[in-house]
Amino acid sequence: MIGHGFMGAAHSQGWRVAPRFFDLPRDPEMAVVVGRNPETVTASAGRWGWRESATDWRDVVARDDIDVVDIVTPGDTHAEIAIAALAAGKHVLCEKPLANTVEEAQAMEHAAAEAAGRGIRSMVGFTYRRVPAATFARDLVASGRLGRIRQVRAEYLQDWLMDADAPLTWRLQKEHAGSGALGDIGAHAVDLTEFITGQQVTSVSGVVETLVHERPLLSEGVGLSGTATSQRGAVTVDDVALFTGRLDSGALASFEATRFRTGRKNALRIEISGSEGALAFDLERLNELEFYDATQPALEQGFRRILVTEHGHPYLAAWWPPGHVLGYEHGFSHQVRDFVVAVDEGVGPRPSFADGLHVQRVLDAVQRSSAASGLWTPVGG
Amino acid sequence: MIGHGFMGAAHSQGWRVAPRFFDLPRDPEMAVVVGRNPETVTASAGRWGWRESATDWRDVVARDDIDVVDIVTPGDTHAEIAIAALAAGKHVLCEKPLANTVEEAQAMEHAAAEAAGRGIRSMVGFTYRRVPAATFARDLVASGRLGRIRQVRAEYLQDWLMDADAPLTWRLQKEHAGSGALGDIGAHAVDLTEFITGQQVTSVSGVVETLVHERPLLSEGVGLSGTATSQRGAVTVDDVALFTGRLDSGALASFEATRFRTGRKNALRIEISGSEGALAFDLERLNELEFYDATQPALEQGFRRILVTEHGHPYLAAWWPPGHVLGYEHGFSHQVRDFVVAVDEGVGPRPSFADGLHVQRVLDAVQRSSAASGLWTPVGG
Amino acid sequence: MIGHGFMGAAHSQGWRVAPRFFDLPRDPEMAVVVGRNPETVTASAGRWGWRESATDWRDVVARDDIDVVDIVTPGDTHAEIAIAALAAGKHVLCEKPLANTVEEAQAMEHAAAEAAGRGIRSMVGFTYRRVPAATFARDLVASGRLGRIRQVRAEYLQDWLMDADAPLTWRLQKEHAGSGALGDIGAHAVDLTEFITGQQVTSVSGVVETLVHERPLLSEGVGLSGTATSQRGAVTVDDVALFTGRLDSGALASFEATRFRTGRKNALRIEISGSEGALAFDLERLNELEFYDATQPALEQGFRRILVTEHGHPYLAAWWPPGHVLGYEHGFSHQVRDFVVAVDEGVGPRPSFADGLHVQRVLDAVQRSSAASGLWTPVGG
Amino acid sequence: MIGHGFMGAAHSQGWRVAPRFFDLPRDPEMAVVVGRNPETVTASAGRWGWRESATDWRDVVARDDIDVVDIVTPGDTHAEIAIAALAAGKHVLCEKPLANTVEEAQAMEHAAAEAAGRGIRSMVGFTYRRVPAATFARDLVASGRLGRIRQVRAEYLQDWLMDADAPLTWRLQKEHAGSGALGDIGAHAVDLTEFITGQQVTSVSGVVETLVHERPLLSEGVGLSGTATSQRGAVTVDDVALFTGRLDSGALASFEATRFRTGRKNALRIEISGSEGALAFDLERLNELEFYDATQPALEQGFRRILVTEHGHPYLAAWWPPGHVLGYEHGFSHQVRDFVVAVDEGVGPRPSFADGLHVQRVLDAVQRSSAASGLWTPVGG
Repeated sequence: MIGHGFMGAAHSQGWRVAPRFFDLPRDPEMAVVVGRNPETVTASAGRWGWRESATDWRDVVARDDIDVVDIVTPGDTHAEIAIAALAAGKHVLCEKPLANTVEEAQAMEHAAAEAAGRGIRSMVGFTYRRVPAATFARDLVASGRLGRIRQVRAEYLQDWLMDADAPLTWRLQKEHAGSGALGDIGAHAVDLTEFITGQQVTSVSGVVETLVHERPLLSEGVGLSGTATSQRGAVTVDDVALFTGRLDSGALASFEATRFRTGRKNALRIEISGSEGALAFDLERLNELEFYDATQPALEQGFRRILVTEHGHPYLAAWWPPGHVLGYEHGFSHQVRDFVVAVDEGVGPRPSFADGLHVQRVLDAVQRSSAASGLWTPVGG
Repeated sequence: MIGHGFMGAAHSQGWRVAPRFFDLPRDPEMAVVVGRNPETVTASAGRWGWRESATDWRDVVARDDIDVVDIVTPGDTHAEIAIAALAAGKHVLCEKPLANTVEEAQAMEHAAAEAAGRGIRSMVGFTYRRVPAATFARDLVASGRLGRIRQVRAEYLQDWLMDADAPLTWRLQKEHAGSGALGDIGAHAVDLTEFITGQQVTSVSGVVETLVHERPLLSEGVGLSGTATSQRGAVTVDDVALFTGRLDSGALASFEATRFRTGRKNALRIEISGSEGALAFDLERLNELEFYDATQPALEQGFRRILVTEHGHPYLAAWWPPGHVLGYEHGFSHQVRDFVVAVDEGVGPRPSFADGLHVQRVLDAVQRSSAASGLWTPVGG
Repeated sequence: MIGHGFMGAAHSQGWRVAPRFFDLPRDPEMAVVVGRNPETVTASAGRWGWRESATDWRDVVARDDIDVVDIVTPGDTHAEIAIAALAAGKHVLCEKPLANTVEEAQAMEHAAAEAAGRGIRSMVGFTYRRVPAATFARDLVASGRLGRIRQVRAEYLQDWLMDADAPLTWRLQKEHAGSGALGDIGAHAVDLTEFITGQQVTSVSGVVETLVHERPLLSEGVGLSGTATSQRGAVTVDDVALFTGRLDSGALASFEATRFRTGRKNALRIEISGSEGALAFDLERLNELEFYDATQPALEQGFRRILVTEHGHPYLAAWWPPGHVLGYEHGFSHQVRDFVVAVDEGVGPRPSFADGLHVQRVLDAVQRSSAASGLWTPVGG
Repeated sequence: MIGHGFMGAAHSQGWRVAPRFFDLPRDPEMAVVVGRNPETVTASAGRWGWRESATDWRDVVARDDIDVVDIVTPGDTHAEIAIAALAAGKHVLCEKPLANTVEEAQAMEHAAAEAAGRGIRSMVGFTYRRVPAATFARDLVASGRLGRIRQVRAEYLQDWLMDADAPLTWRLQKEHAGSGALGDIGAHAVDLTEFITGQQVTSVSGVVETLVHERPLLSEGVGLSGTATSQRGAVTVDDVALFTGRLDSGALASFEATRFRTGRKNALRIEISGSEGALAFDLERLNELEFYDATQPALEQGFRRILVTEHGHPYLAAWWPPGHVLGYEHGFSHQVRDFVVAVDEGVGPRPSFADGLHVQRVLDAVQRSSAASGLWTPVGG
């Protein structure tokens, strides 16, 4: 695993726990964790249960005893590491967003396609596809329970930057993060929409905007935030992104990604309206899916709150009795499970690097539309 | 009262009930109801308690014993009636939207301004301002409880046109309704945003769209719908409007008006995010206001559901003990109360025709932006 | 109408509004309102639209031009008035609880039965049966959608007596109110349970308790409360009643009536669990009914929130388009409608005085069980 | 660890994960798992990461290299194992209920008290105390935010026995489970009430009842259920328990434990009403706590939904950023953390065996009250 921040902790938990609850066809070993700082990466290895630590990812990628490279670094380093790992014949699981630019993502997608010819698998870490309620939502749409999709609303709302003195972490610097709310959380809203509907966004009209332009420099990171210094630096990414997209079918989807919605902590919400039903999901209540069945008798229709904890729901047979809820990190175990199965079966896992590239193209089109005063802009590719 | 459809019933209830619960400075008499069809308007008079009925609004507007004209006809007739009534020295309450075009609305606003000089009052019927929870939301913002407003989301979601065979009522014909979801319900979302925030929308970027282009012609109207014939006609208004607006303060507000959100019946929702708090309101639960106080201790913050039924809440002292909820039509009694008080006190009631004109300009800018492929478009005026 | 407190206002609104929205077979006239204080009853007549006022109910009951007597006084006077009115050949609508003691209620029931033989109708005002969602709940149970009923939970939660200095109104005095939370709101919980399930409570085990034993005497009443004096008097009714009941079918129902549940303003809630489904209702959200259909596919089951505002729902065709919600007082219009129809059709309306007597017997059994240290106690009759 | 059913999986996850997220003062090793069936226990050891498996708990308890014994067997075996382990100088973590009878629980409590003198620690596994929202609820009460507690409602609702053909597992047999809903889930409701309020139940009045008296015998267990055979056996435990308790302070608490509340899967809910505030918790939404602050301005009071995921909330600093929710099993990691810390610091952990004994006495009093036709019955001890 390359990287050991917040995402490193989550991925480690996925690797550690998945084999305990799922019958995996292969037995993953947690071999090496890589970080630039020898002290902290050694501590991470001990804490999260990696056998070794290392400071140079190139060495690790070159090792014969490594089969899988899991990339959890900031987005600006994804392309170089992933391409090298694929070239070295390693299966690659890469955190989202796939890259910071469309060009990098394209290069990665080419490398993945070439590697697939050699039996090497690659996947991008849009983990929320693996929240059981989201997977079940996809199943309901795929089985036609919603009929023809008429409209989509997808939003990812947070408020952790409301405080104008929250420090300037790498997530607020364009050179590391690529974009702000758009790429960090808007990417999830786009991917989840495409995953559940089975459709792609083909053009967009939108606006991205920075609300706080200067923040205190960071002395030490803690979680998503950290300790501030007295100096200030420029925020070079967006705080808010609002955009409308057109799906393959012609349906309109409206998106919002923001870190300025007071009181919303991690509200990735999606509502899909179809001719025969509707679905609503909220990541803050991730064990629930609301389903409206418009084919029921007219007087009995209503959004029903399905507690997605039955053994027949996706991934749930591996866990607890009905009503015993899962948390945020379970998606990472499900991701490991699906990735290992795909590698074993020699099937290309989803979301593929091509899926990740497409999301990157949507984000890029949003930024171009915003720069063009809101003009509808086709998603390239 | 000119007109006697769904809105006529609601306004009649307002006129009948308000004097029973509020101490009005003047005692309104329900004198004449006007409609084109003598039979049905006679029935309406009997049913809703109007002393007389008439078929020519011009006669009624000319009568000396009439002090107030309440206009509840479709939007294409508002301008002519209102201007005539104001000229005749009648106070005017006019249903929203003020008019179907900016030009008409401008003429009405001029007439109202001129009449105000003669002590004649005019008001536009954005009744939802008078839902106690909405009024209370405005009070909280005005008293600074939200701090600086950072973002607004306002949506009005219905689903009554999901059925592609729902008949072609006047609300689906541009010549009568002006626009579709945009003017019918989007107007409420814009007005409520401006009312609660105390700010105006200054520019917009958006899209309006018709999803079902032909519908069965109507034989007889019933409520908002009616009985269909076998012939079909063209839908000439929008089904969905999605737009982003910029407020005076620079904050972004995102809007949605749609009749295609499956399972949402009358969901006028607004969420306002500020530096010190947030508010959320949903017309389907109109007795409740959600309030997030970001100045509370960090571990105790959360959206609280205020049941807006205390005697200290706006309008509530007139009604029932706490916890005894109000319904949709109570706003019409509150509107009558405020209108009569304003007339008595000689103060210009709000929302004024100028307010109504402004909303009309916002809607017009949305349509122009949509025609210009989403380009940000200034709201004129 | 005899009495003119809070209930008088609500009943007046029912009489005034019902004929405007429902096609009544007879046209009710609001003739006389009766109260002991000539000044205040005159004011009430003016405010609520009664043609005359009077101070002696005996005179009014004797008048030939009166057909219906509506009793909205405290419970200690119900028996005398109702029996006199029935004897005088007036149809009687009597507010709940039917009486303060089983003996009085029995006498009233006998009078009603006797009067019925002469074509005189009587009904007790358990208005919440006429909240559309509650009526619809009854319909769902009656049509078998819940299967065999396995358990019921019914609670009526308020908090207006949490303040130990809230004044000593007649509702806190045994001689006027009969009992406290038990008779005032517990009666509703029992009646609604029996109405929706179609079953009766046959035995109970419970406890009633007073939490605040002394309160300031009242100088002037306002709504449910009023202005306090510096003197204190004894609270002679219960604040809390907790009991379990056995229904005809053997199923257990658990009840709670309390004025000490902080933050609950008017939460009459009932949840009914059956072999094929479940229902949940909350008066604070009276336009909604939650329905769980256990015959749906296992993975799709969930409590669905039905917005009970469709034209096909009980009473709703008379009101607004779907999604336009009703309030507390609409039940009083529905009550008037049902009462007038029953009188016209010569059918005994429900809830009958016999129904009211039965509820009284349940309340009495709860008090006897509480006095007997919780022992299971049969409901007499 | 003795036992390896559902609880074994949960405890194993606690032991495996706790050291990865918390700085434990000692490093637990997962040494041996014990089960009667050599094949299945070997499989469990492999699956859940125990170094060895064994079939005789006596051998394991006697081993010098074992410091801690974690008991996750059915309740009928707890006493013998726990007493032997304590005698052998092992720290003991014992799943709830502490025992099936008061006598056994007393013996265990004596053994624990004696062992404590030798520095040996013991704890009972009421894990829900360690759900962060529940712990935070306790903190709020302890700091006086609710004022004087006036009423408590605690219920644990499930529906997995609604199906009359669900098989007869050990949880439905008195000889193994002691009681049914009462001991299995009612015990949690009692413990959580006592934990959050800091008070004890001193007397009770209640009823326990079996609704389905015969069920198919079990061929093979799966999760909480299993595969049925065609033979039937007697259910010897209760399906429903309804009881009222008196707390130390005199406040009334009402309890319900049931497996027949259709649509409720794992709804352990508690609502505490105090003179200055109220709290509501529901295990199906375990990341949330509803808090009503009655000291806020009257018009702004309401139940607020606190997302208990801030770093300052109990246990949360160890996990993810705010808004990233936890699941059912996290409580088991918290339990391990607290147990290991207590052992290291030489402090008696809570809930102690004395706490477990007290809960057992409450359950016993409920059964005695039910047998005595609901009579109020003091909790012994």
